[in-house]
Amino acid sequence: MTDDFMRRGLAMLLLAGLFATMLPTRAYAQDAETEAPVAEEAAETETAPVEEAEEAAAEEEAPAEDLGVGYALDNAVLFFCAVLVFLMQAGFAMVEAGFNASKNAVNILFKNSMDICVGVLLFFLIGFGLMYPDLYEGGSGNGWFGFGGVGLDGYAKASDRVFAPECDWLFQAVFAATAATIVSGAVAGRMKVGGYLIYSAVLTGLIYPISGYWKWGGGWADAWGFQDFAGSAVVHGLGGFAGLAGAIILGPRLGRYVDGKSMPMPGHNLPLAALGVFILWFGWYGFNPGSQLAFQGTGDIDMTMHCAITTTLSAGAGGIVATLLSWIMFGKPDLSMGLNGILGGLVGITACCDCMSTWQAILVGAVSGVLVIVGVMILDKLKIDDPVGAWPVHGLCGLWGCIAIGILPNGYLEAGDTNLVVQTVSAVAICAWAFFTMLLLFSVLKAFGLLRVSVEEEQQGLDVSEHGMSAYTH
Amino acid sequence: MTDDFMRRGLAMLLLAGLFATMLPTRAYAQDAETEAPVAEEAAETETAPVEEAEEAAAEEEAPAEDLGVGYALDNAVLFFCAVLVFLMQAGFAMVEAGFNASKNAVNILFKNSMDICVGVLLFFLIGFGLMYPDLYEGGSGNGWFGFGGVGLDGYAKASDRVFAPECDWLFQAVFAATAATIVSGAVAGRMKVGGYLIYSAVLTGLIYPISGYWKWGGGWADAWGFQDFAGSAVVHGLGGFAGLAGAIILGPRLGRYVDGKSMPMPGHNLPLAALGVFILWFGWYGFNPGSQLAFQGTGDIDMTMHCAITTTLSAGAGGIVATLLSWIMFGKPDLSMGLNGILGGLVGITACCDCMSTWQAILVGAVSGVLVIVGVMILDKLKIDDPVGAWPVHGLCGLWGCIAIGILPNGYLEAGDTNLVVQTVSAVAICAWAFFTMLLLFSVLKAFGLLRVSVEEEQQGLDVSEHGMSAYTH
Amino acid sequence: MTDDFMRRGLAMLLLAGLFATMLPTRAYAQDAETEAPVAEEAAETETAPVEEAEEAAAEEEAPAEDLGVGYALDNAVLFFCAVLVFLMQAGFAMVEAGFNASKNAVNILFKNSMDICVGVLLFFLIGFGLMYPDLYEGGSGNGWFGFGGVGLDGYAKASDRVFAPECDWLFQAVFAATAATIVSGAVAGRMKVGGYLIYSAVLTGLIYPISGYWKWGGGWADAWGFQDFAGSAVVHGLGGFAGLAGAIILGPRLGRYVDGKSMPMPGHNLPLAALGVFILWFGWYGFNPGSQLAFQGTGDIDMTMHCAITTTLSAGAGGIVATLLSWIMFGKPDLSMGLNGILGGLVGITACCDCMSTWQAILVGAVSGVLVIVGVMILDKLKIDDPVGAWPVHGLCGLWGCIAIGILPNGYLEAGDTNLVVQTVSAVAICAWAFFTMLLLFSVLKAFGLLRVSVEEEQQGLDVSEHGMSAYTH
Repeated sequence: MTDDFMRRGLAMLLLAGLFATMLPTRAYAQDAETEAPVAEEAAETETAPVEEAEEAAAEEEAPAEDLGVGYALDNAVLFFCAVLVFLMQAGFAMVEAGFNASKNAVNILFKNSMDICVGVLLFFLIGFGLMYPDLYEGGSGNGWFGFGGVGLDGYAKASDRVFAPECDWLFQAVFAATAATIVSGAVAGRMKVGGYLIYSAVLTGLIYPISGYWKWGGGWADAWGFQDFAGSAVVHGLGGFAGLAGAIILGPRLGRYVDGKSMPMPGHNLPLAALGVFILWFGWYGFNPGSQLAFQGTGDIDMTMHCAITTTLSAGAGGIVATLLSWIMFGKPDLSMGLNGILGGLVGITACCDCMSTWQAILVGAVSGVLVIVGVMILDKLKIDDPVGAWPVHGLCGLWGCIAIGILPNGYLEAGDTNLVVQTVSAVAICAWAFFTMLLLFSVLKAFGLLRVSVEEEQQGLDVSEHGMSAYTH
Repeated sequence: MTDDFMRRGLAMLLLAGLFATMLPTRAYAQDAETEAPVAEEAAETETAPVEEAEEAAAEEEAPAEDLGVGYALDNAVLFFCAVLVFLMQAGFAMVEAGFNASKNAVNILFKNSMDICVGVLLFFLIGFGLMYPDLYEGGSGNGWFGFGGVGLDGYAKASDRVFAPECDWLFQAVFAATAATIVSGAVAGRMKVGGYLIYSAVLTGLIYPISGYWKWGGGWADAWGFQDFAGSAVVHGLGGFAGLAGAIILGPRLGRYVDGKSMPMPGHNLPLAALGVFILWFGWYGFNPGSQLAFQGTGDIDMTMHCAITTTLSAGAGGIVATLLSWIMFGKPDLSMGLNGILGGLVGITACCDCMSTWQAILVGAVSGVLVIVGVMILDKLKIDDPVGAWPVHGLCGLWGCIAIGILPNGYLEAGDTNLVVQTVSAVAICAWAFFTMLLLFSVLKAFGLLRVSVEEEQQGLDVSEHGMSAYTH
Repeated sequence: MTDDFMRRGLAMLLLAGLFATMLPTRAYAQDAETEAPVAEEAAETETAPVEEAEEAAAEEEAPAEDLGVGYALDNAVLFFCAVLVFLMQAGFAMVEAGFNASKNAVNILFKNSMDICVGVLLFFLIGFGLMYPDLYEGGSGNGWFGFGGVGLDGYAKASDRVFAPECDWLFQAVFAATAATIVSGAVAGRMKVGGYLIYSAVLTGLIYPISGYWKWGGGWADAWGFQDFAGSAVVHGLGGFAGLAGAIILGPRLGRYVDGKSMPMPGHNLPLAALGVFILWFGWYGFNPGSQLAFQGTGDIDMTMHCAITTTLSAGAGGIVATLLSWIMFGKPDLSMGLNGILGGLVGITACCDCMSTWQAILVGAVSGVLVIVGVMILDKLKIDDPVGAWPVHGLCGLWGCIAIGILPNGYLEAGDTNLVVQTVSAVAICAWAFFTMLLLFSVLKAFGLLRVSVEEEQQGLDVSEHGMSAYTH
C-alpha cells in the first residue's frame, strides 16, 4: 500500500516538477542584456574558441566594468575548491559502501547519488535563500529565520561584490549536500529508500539552511560571536547528530546486538573505504581552505594556506592517535579506526583551521582521534547502531572543534569575542536543532510506515528488496 | 594467422615509432633561445627551487615580454580544467568496467588506458593540426578540411596570444581522448583488442579532429552559426554515434537477445560504476566551465561560473528524472538508470551550459533524463546491444543539447544567429559523420577478421582470451 | 615478546606525543599579532563569510603589505598542485592493493594511510628543517647536511618571499610522503607492520630530507649543476632503491620462486590497480608542472605548461611501448605492463619535463616503457621479489630520467652546466644513499625480529595476522 502511494506520488511529483521548470523559462537573453552584457558579447563573437577568447579578452579591458584579475582569481580559486568539495560525495559513497555489507551497497550508492541530485536542486530552489537572505534584494532575516528568494534571481548584484553569485552558490551547495550525505551512513542497512529521500530533501532544503543562517548567514550565533570557520558544527555536527537521531529511531540492524552483546558487522570492501577516506581528505582541501572566501589579498591567501597546513596536520594526528589507541586497546592496529581517526581529525580542525597554530592543530587532531574511539564505545554501550561511525566522527569531533576554540589560546581570544560558553552553547544548539528536528521527522516517517524495511527485506538486503539489483555479479 | 599478422605489425610499428621520435630531436635549446628566453634563464639560474623562483619572479618584471598576471591566470585555470577532464578517463573506465561482466573487465581497462595513451600521441602528431589549422603558421582550412602541421612546432606564437600553446593543446587533447573512450563501452565484451586499437587511432587521429574543425576550428558549422559550447555534438554525439555504429556491426553479445527477448546482463561491480559517475561529474567541471576559454575578464569568469551552475543543475535534474521514471515504470528505483540520468544531464547541458538560464538548465537535464530511458528502450526494440548505454547517454542527449538551443529562448537567439535548422542540421551532420565513417571502418575491420572474437573466446571472456589474465583473483 | 614490546612502546609514544603537542601551545594570537596582522583582522571582522571577504578585500588594498594578485596566484596554483600530489597517495594505495593478493589488502591500505599521517607530522617536525635549512632564520647547511629548525616557527619571513611558508611546506610534504609510499609496494605481503612504521618514519623524517637537501635545498648536488626538475632521482629513484633494499633483505614471498622458477602471483583486483594509475597520472600534473615553483611570470607559466605536455606525451609513450613490447614478447597485450609503462613514462620525464622538447619527451617515455619490462626481467633473474614493480618503475626509470639530461640535447646543455657525469654520479649517489641506508635499517629491523612475519602468518595473510580483519566480507 505504501509502495503504491509512493509510486503515485512520484508520478505526480515528476509531472509537477517538469511543469514547474517551464514556468520561469523567460528569455535568458533579456537577463543577459541587463545583467551580464559581456556574456552576450561572447555569444555574438563566438567563432573558434581561441579566437573568441582573444577578442573577449581585448574587449574586457574597459575599466568601468572590469573587477580586475583579482576578482577572476577569487572566483577561480573558490570554484576549484567547490569542485574538490563536490568529490567528497564520491568519498562518502565509497566509505559508506565499503564499511557496510555488500547486500546493501547499491542502496548506499543510490542514496548518495540522490543526495547530491536532490540536494543541489533544493538548495537552489529554497536552501540558498533561507541560508543567506541578506544576499537577496530586499531579503533579510530576524536572526532565527529569513528567506531571500527562490533560485538566484533576486541575488543582489552589488557593484562591490566578491564572487559571481553562481560561484558563491556552488560552494555553498556542495556543503549542503555534504551535510545530507553524512546521515546516509548512520542509517544504512535498514531504512526504506522513499523515507530516506524525504529525509534528504528536508535536511538540505530546510534544516541545514536554517541553522546555517544562524552562523554563516549572519543570524544569532554569528551576532553572539560564535566561531565555526568551515563548519565543524554547522555542517558536520549537524549531519552527525541528524544521523544519531535516525539511528536511534530506526533501531539497530538485525543481529547487531544479540543478548546484550555487540556483534561486529565488518565492512564488505575496505579498499573502497580507504579510497573514500583519501578522496575525502583530498576534498577537504577545498572545504577548509576554500572557506576563507577571499584569496587575492596577501593576508587572505596566507590564511588560506594556514588552513591547508592545519588541516593536514590534524588529519595526520587523528589517524595516528586512533591507530595507536586501537593497537593498545585491541592488540592490533585497526584500519577502520585509523581511517575514522583521519576523518575525525579533519572534522575537528574544520571549525578552527584558521585560528589554531600548527602545534595546536596537531593537538586538535590527536584529541579527535581519541574521541572517535570513545564515541564508538559510547554507541556500543547505548546499543545504538551507527554502521560507519557517523556520530563519533562528525557529531562528536564536530562539537570538539568548536569547543576547542573556547579552550585553547588562539587568534580569536585575542579579539575578545570568543569564549567557551558562546562556543559550547552555539555548537550544541546547532547539533540539538538537527537532533530534535530529525527525531521528529524520523518518528513521523515511522508512523507512516515509511521508515524501516521488513525483517525479510533486511535479511535479503536492501539492494534486492528496494532496488531489485545486486552490487556484484559475475 | 591474424594474430601473427598483428604481432609482426606491432613489432614494426614499435621500431618505426622509436625511430620516428629520434628524427625531430633537434636541440630544444635552440628553440628555447629563440622562442622562450625566459625558460632558459630559469634553467641557468636553477638552484634551490624556492630561490630560483624568487629570482625568476624578479627577472620577469621586464614589461616588454610580460603578458601579465591575467595571462598566467588564464593558463592556470585552463590547465586545471584540462586536468579535471583528464580524470574523466578514470571515470569512463570505472563506469564501463562496473557495468560489464567481470570476465571482460581487464579488456575494458586496457582499452581505456590505451585510448588516452594512443589518443594524446596521435592528437599531438596530427589531430591538433587537423582540428585547428588556423593556429599554425601558414595553416588554413577550406571549411571542411585543413591541416596546420605536425606537433606544436608550427603553432603561431602571436604576441597577442591567450594561452601557451601547450596549455591549449592539453585541453583539446583530453577532449579528443574523451570522444574515443565513449565508444569503448558500446562495443564491450566481444571486440578484438587489435581492432579496437585501430578504431581508437582512427577516431582520435582523424574522425574527431576533422568534425571538430567544422565547429571549433572555424569550419562550415561555425561559419553557419552553429552553437555547441563544450561539445554535446562535437564530442559526445560523435562518440555516441560512433559507438552505435560499432554496436550494430558487431552485433549483440551472446545471450543478450534470446528468442527475440531482451535478457538483462547486469554490471559486475556497481560501486565502481557509481564511483565512475561521480568522477565524471567532477571532471565535467573542467569540461564545461573550462570551455569558456578565457577567465581573467570579469564577464568571462562570470560566464565560467554560469556554466558551472547550469552543469550542476542539469546533472541533478537528469539523475532525479531518470530515477523517478524508472521507479514509476519498473516499480523500483534503478541505480543504473539514475547514474545514466546524471550522465545524460551532463551531456545535454554541455552544448548550452553558457546560454541557458538556471531554470532552463533544469529543464534540459530533466529532458535528458527522459531521453536516457527512451534511448535504452529504442535500442532494446531494435535489438542493438550497447552494454553501458553509450548511445542513449552521449548520442541522444548530445543531439538534444544542441537542438535545445534552437528551441528554448536563450542568449544566442537574441544574437540572431541561432535557429533550430542550423542547430539540428549541424549536430546531425557531426553525428552522421561519426556514424557512417565508423560504420565503414568497423565493416572493414570485420572483413579483415579483426572485429569480433570467436564464440568460445567471448564465452570465456576477453580478459583470458585477449589478455591472458583475470581482473580478480585471490 | 616483540608484540608486547611494540605495545608498550606505542603507549609511551602516544603519551609522549600528546604531551609534546602541549608544549609549544603558546598563544597563536601573539604570533598573529606580529607575523600575520591581516589574519587577526579577518578574525575580528568575521561576520557572514561573504561580507567578511568584502571587508577584508577592502582592507588589504594597503600597498605596503600587499604582495599583489600575482603572489596570490602563485600560492593558489602551488596549493592546487600540492592537492593533486596528495591524491597520489590514493593512487599508490589502489595500485599496490590491486596488484597484490586480497589477503594482504588491508595491510597495504594501512601502510599507505599511515605513510601520509606519519609523513606529514615528521616532515613538519624535522623533515622540512633538514631539507631546506636555508629557509630558516639563521639556518644553513654544509652541502651534505643542515638543519634549519622544528616546524615552521623559524621559517624566515622575507619581505620578498614567493610563497606562504605553509604552502611551500605542503607541496614539499606531499612529495616526502610520495617517496615513502613507493616502498610499500616492494615489501608487500611479508613485512611486519611495526617494522614498516619504523621504516616509514626514518625515510620521511631523515633519509629523504637529507638527500633532498643535496639537490633542492642547495647542497652539493645542486652546486655541482645536477638537474632533477621534479624528482626522478630525488623522489622516485630514492623510493625505488629503498624498496629494492627492502625486497632484498626481506626475501621473496613464499611460493614466488619455486625450484628456481619464477611463479607469477597476479594482483587480486585489476580495476583498482587501473584506477590507481589514472589517479597517479592525474596527480602527476601537480607533481611535475607544480615543480616550476613560480607561475605569475609569463615565462614561468609557459614553462609550467611545457612540463604538462611533456609529462602527458611521455606517459602515453611509456604506456604504448610497454604494451607493444609485452604483446610481442608474450603474445598478448598485458594490462599490468601497460599500466606500469605509463608510470615509468611519468617517472622518467619527471627529472626533465622542463628541458626536453615534446619530441624528446616521447623518446624519454618510450625508453621508460622498455626499461619497465627490462627491470621486471632483471628482478626475475636475480630472484628478487618486488610485488608491484616499484624498482623498475621508480628506481630504474628514475635513474634514466636524470641520465637522459646528460645524453639528449636540451635546454640545460646550452646553459653549459649539465653533463653526463654530473647527472649520472649525482643520481646514482642519491639512489645509493637510499639503498645502503635502507639496507642497514632493514637489517637492523631483521636483527630485532621486527622485519618479517612468520610462515604461518604469511600464508594466512597479513590482514588477519597483523590487523585481525579482512578486506572483503559479505
